[in-house]
Amino acid sequence: MKRKSQAKIQRPSLASSSVSHGKRVRLWRLFHGSGPRNGTLIVLPLDQGLEHGPADFFPHPPAIDPDYQFRLALEGNYSAIALGVGLAEKYMKDYCGRVPLILKLNGKTNIADDAEAVSPAYASVEDAVRLGADAVGYTMYVGTPRQDVEIGEYRKVRQDCERLGMPLVMWAYPRGRAIEAKGGKGTLYAQDYAARVAEEMGADIVKLHEPTPETDRVPEPYRSLREDARARVRRVVRSAGRVFVLFSGGEKDDSTWTAAPPA
Amino acid sequence: MKRKSQAKIQRPSLASSSVSHGKRVRLWRLFHGSGPRNGTLIVLPLDQGLEHGPADFFPHPPAIDPDYQFRLALEGNYSAIALGVGLAEKYMKDYCGRVPLILKLNGKTNIADDAEAVSPAYASVEDAVRLGADAVGYTMYVGTPRQDVEIGEYRKVRQDCERLGMPLVMWAYPRGRAIEAKGGKGTLYAQDYAARVAEEMGADIVKLHEPTPETDRVPEPYRSLREDARARVRRVVRSAGRVFVLFSGGEKDDSTWTAAPPA
Amino acid sequence: MKRKSQAKIQRPSLASSSVSHGKRVRLWRLFHGSGPRNGTLIVLPLDQGLEHGPADFFPHPPAIDPDYQFRLALEGNYSAIALGVGLAEKYMKDYCGRVPLILKLNGKTNIADDAEAVSPAYASVEDAVRLGADAVGYTMYVGTPRQDVEIGEYRKVRQDCERLGMPLVMWAYPRGRAIEAKGGKGTLYAQDYAARVAEEMGADIVKLHEPTPETDRVPEPYRSLREDARARVRRVVRSAGRVFVLFSGGEKDDSTWTAAPPA
Amino acid sequence: MKRKSQAKIQRPSLASSSVSHGKRVRLWRLFHGSGPRNGTLIVLPLDQGLEHGPADFFPHPPAIDPDYQFRLALEGNYSAIALGVGLAEKYMKDYCGRVPLILKLNGKTNIADDAEAVSPAYASVEDAVRLGADAVGYTMYVGTPRQDVEIGEYRKVRQDCERLGMPLVMWAYPRGRAIEAKGGKGTLYAQDYAARVAEEMGADIVKLHEPTPETDRVPEPYRSLREDARARVRRVVRSAGRVFVLFSGGEKDDSTWTAAPPA
Amino acid sequence: MKRKSQAKIQRPSLASSSVSHGKRVRLWRLFHGSGPRNGTLIVLPLDQGLEHGPADFFPHPPAIDPDYQFRLALEGNYSAIALGVGLAEKYMKDYCGRVPLILKLNGKTNIADDAEAVSPAYASVEDAVRLGADAVGYTMYVGTPRQDVEIGEYRKVRQDCERLGMPLVMWAYPRGRAIEAKGGKGTLYAQDYAARVAEEMGADIVKLHEPTPETDRVPEPYRSLREDARARVRRVVRSAGRVFVLFSGGEKDDSTWTAAPPA
Repeated sequence: MKRKSQAKIQRPSLASSSVSHGKRVRLWRLFHGSGPRNGTLIVLPLDQGLEHGPADFFPHPPAIDPDYQFRLALEGNYSAIALGVGLAEKYMKDYCGRVPLILKLNGKTNIADDAEAVSPAYASVEDAVRLGADAVGYTMYVGTPRQDVEIGEYRKVRQDCERLGMPLVMWAYPRGRAIEAKGGKGTLYAQDYAARVAEEMGADIVKLHEPTPETDRVPEPYRSLREDARARVRRVVRSAGRVFVLFSGGEKDDSTWTAAPPA
Repeated sequence: MKRKSQAKIQRPSLASSSVSHGKRVRLWRLFHGSGPRNGTLIVLPLDQGLEHGPADFFPHPPAIDPDYQFRLALEGNYSAIALGVGLAEKYMKDYCGRVPLILKLNGKTNIADDAEAVSPAYASVEDAVRLGADAVGYTMYVGTPRQDVEIGEYRKVRQDCERLGMPLVMWAYPRGRAIEAKGGKGTLYAQDYAARVAEEMGADIVKLHEPTPETDRVPEPYRSLREDARARVRRVVRSAGRVFVLFSGGEKDDSTWTAAPPA
Repeated sequence: MKRKSQAKIQRPSLASSSVSHGKRVRLWRLFHGSGPRNGTLIVLPLDQGLEHGPADFFPHPPAIDPDYQFRLALEGNYSAIALGVGLAEKYMKDYCGRVPLILKLNGKTNIADDAEAVSPAYASVEDAVRLGADAVGYTMYVGTPRQDVEIGEYRKVRQDCERLGMPLVMWAYPRGRAIEAKGGKGTLYAQDYAARVAEEMGADIVKLHEPTPETDRVPEPYRSLREDARARVRRVVRSAGRVFVLFSGGEKDDSTWTAAPPA
Repeated sequence: MKRKSQAKIQRPSLASSSVSHGKRVRLWRLFHGSGPRNGTLIVLPLDQGLEHGPADFFPHPPAIDPDYQFRLALEGNYSAIALGVGLAEKYMKDYCGRVPLILKLNGKTNIADDAEAVSPAYASVEDAVRLGADAVGYTMYVGTPRQDVEIGEYRKVRQDCERLGMPLVMWAYPRGRAIEAKGGKGTLYAQDYAARVAEEMGADIVKLHEPTPETDRVPEPYRSLREDARARVRRVVRSAGRVFVLFSGGEKDDSTWTAAPPA
Repeated sequence: MKRKSQAKIQRPSLASSSVSHGKRVRLWRLFHGSGPRNGTLIVLPLDQGLEHGPADFFPHPPAIDPDYQFRLALEGNYSAIALGVGLAEKYMKDYCGRVPLILKLNGKTNIADDAEAVSPAYASVEDAVRLGADAVGYTMYVGTPRQDVEIGEYRKVRQDCERLGMPLVMWAYPRGRAIEAKGGKGTLYAQDYAARVAEEMGADIVKLHEPTPETDRVPEPYRSLREDARARVRRVVRSAGRVFVLFSGGEKDDSTWTAAPPA
């Protein structure tokens, strides 16, 4: 049989994607209807207040105000803003239609430790439809010992997304006691696995972190890889396959992703 | 881009709030239809019998009688009384319509310890509608190790509130083994986080405690803050954003909150 | 404001109760339609076989036969018999209509210990309706570490009772590791708390035990009370408020409660 | 009042039973429509493959073939065969109508230990109706620390049986850490309690084991009983009351029960 | 009674199977509509990316591309490809109808250990219908301490398969702390038990591994068997009864099964 060359990663494109009409409408808005409008998706996330507490805003106090963030998304030409139902309901009124919304469905505080982390949903895909969102965000704690709870809740979200034509952005975050024992959440081993989980479980977009170098605790064959940063990124993008990849940037409040050429 | 000054906290107002018509009707009754009628909400809570047991009434024996409490709410010009379904059903008959009801939906005894506290719902938003309540109260144990149970139940309550136009008052109470290890439930760190959780998760009103000074076990940057009481209060109010803040008073049986100017 | 005297406990009466028409019909049958017919409710309970095993019947062997118990209820002029769905279905045929039934909905064996006791429901309020019962019984293990499971199931029962006009009798039993550490299930502290839980959570009738003297492990202010038996009983009745109180008698197979004067 | 003599156990009879028409039709088929047809129920059980693994068939290899078992049930004049949904669907075709089916609804492997045993349902009462079964079988692990899970699932089964007129056979098996600490699953204490649980919880037929002599770890008053085998059997039959008792025989693959005289 | 000879294992055939019309249509497609078309089912599985992570593709990098796998299934004349909902939705477009799909419904990562393994469902039988699949795959961790969770979810899947005429392929995988203590997941004891579980619980096809020799930790009578590889295979096929058996091959990415003669 013929084999395609693996030398060059083929970035997924919306045009060739198999997503439904409803997802396609909404993904088009994210990739081409706002922000750079060239297929690049730049998301302004605002879930730190829940995930890390207000302490995250101490270095830059205005950031605590969601209205400031909406203005920032608009003036900074972001493609979309990602936040939870509380912030959307209370702060979106003046920005409706002007800034696409990615409604984050689940989340938790970081007060208790993450050894058996689960991220419970506090909103639903129907909440996202009601609020006019263009996608939902769902955190999947890849490898947590309680992944059965996490995945069970995810199944419902994925099916609702399919039924309602809502794109699903997976925050694929390795987390928990087991991944810590295997080198931590940031390694290529962890991020590469997370990318594949997103593809296997049917996400449309996956949010990852740029993988760090491997450590001694990482399982083989990753431990021996010793690839450079560029090669590591190429690897996780390849593992994500036809799922669009969104990387968290080095800065706290912006994320950048370069998509395929315009559809 | 332009940044609004953060020097002065802008209190939320009902007029500018994004809440639905049904919530607006009921919030108007709480803020302007009874009690001070000037936008200030003063709530008489009566859930101590469940949360702490009858011992809480020993210093002032008449307080054990819910009828006494209803009379107190009426004669004391409170904006509303907050209690559970058992007390509402058995004692509200003579006060229906005269004293707005905030139906507390969940609760627990303090017999078992709070290391993994969960506050289970023993009533629903539909119970509140049936009883003519103007809001529901829901205790969220912020940071408890079993927050997935707590938040899962909360999601249903929040969605029913949205569907039925019922304002949602969150008792945002840091609780559990983890918060104890980080300085306890009363610190600015804990209360500030709780305020933000209420905003992120879509409460309309949040009940907090006035934050105490920080201790050595509190995480940075809070540990180094050393702010005075007034600054601490300003901080948590800012973190609550457009969620109305209700502080527990120093006395056992009254709570005071000063709202925005009349809508 | 005026305060009513607390010197005399006002017993609740059916006439002044706020319960719905359906509950009122059935409570009338319990208080005035059988047994003493003067507002006093005397219940013959038969759940020992499940809760304690057949060993409970060794001292008086005929008691193991539910038919004997039904005859005893009839000939002994009891107001009602309380038992589970298995016994009701197999033994009630000849007594239908002649002896009011309180269908016990949940229960468990005492084989495993009670440190984290939960009493699971093996029947529903609709079973009670189908069998022509005049009330349901629900055991609430007050203070058990797993109270969230217990209360979650209770919520459904309470709502079905409201919907179907079925009186709810709460077996309010302090139980579990925590109450043992605080002096045990029989103390005034425990029974007083249990009485209040029944009132807060919406029971119509509460079954309690006559409180024993306090021990050193009981929390303050109970530890210092040192009241006599009569004062202890008065206290728990006061804590139950408008919930009718039913005390377990000293004998194994009868329970006596004196209600308000006839409605 | 008059007391009936307890000297002679009155065996329950189908004629005098209170079961519904649907249950009565199906019980008649079990007691009088096949097998001895004289009120005696002899059941051929085939759930060892799931409960104990194929090792159970090593002493008699043909027994591993369910078709062999169906032929055995037919040729051996059994009243019914008891097995799970997988075996019924794949092997019953040639025996439909000729051998009554008792569909076993739950089960588990014996690979993990039984300290906190739960027997999960892998089929439903509606499966039994669909397959033309005349009864369902449900294992209840009496006294297991996780009895709340077991009983919660049982409630649904019992209610479906009532709704659909399907007789319910309870495999009442004491199991788990607690019963082991109290002398084990085979003692009179354990079997007597199990018999009563079946009656309290509404089984129509209960499957028990002939009780073994008591040991020193058995609770009083059983420890001091020292009854002979016949007296022990009489005792558990009495505790089962109007529930038909089915004893597991000494042989691995047959069970014998002698019922009341023909209805 | 007559006994059939056990000397020769009778392979199940589709013609004589009791499955419903819908299952029969789809099984015909798997056995005779593609691949060898002679009753032999050869499946190309692609769930390693989820179960083991991308590391599984390191030895043969093109295998990480699901499109490559679909082409391989087509060009390699496989009967079907087995993968999850994410891969099916994103990669099947060009292969629809040309390669039968077995939709794998549950799965998990191998980051956390398997001591109490559960494989949560992230898709449903209705997803399989929607995608035009000819079967669903479900992993059952035979003997895991949390088998009640696993079996509870399986029940729903099995019933949906029956309702929708969808063949059910069980990945019957012994797993968890208990099977490790009894010799591990690959032994004849483990595989033989797994085969029987599939038959008892109603699978149509079971995927097993060729059993390895027994070890000292395996329970009797297996420990003393010491059979050769061929005898071990014959034994597990016999235990599977009328469930079609599919063995994982020695190679990573192919599986071979020889079925009955064409129906």
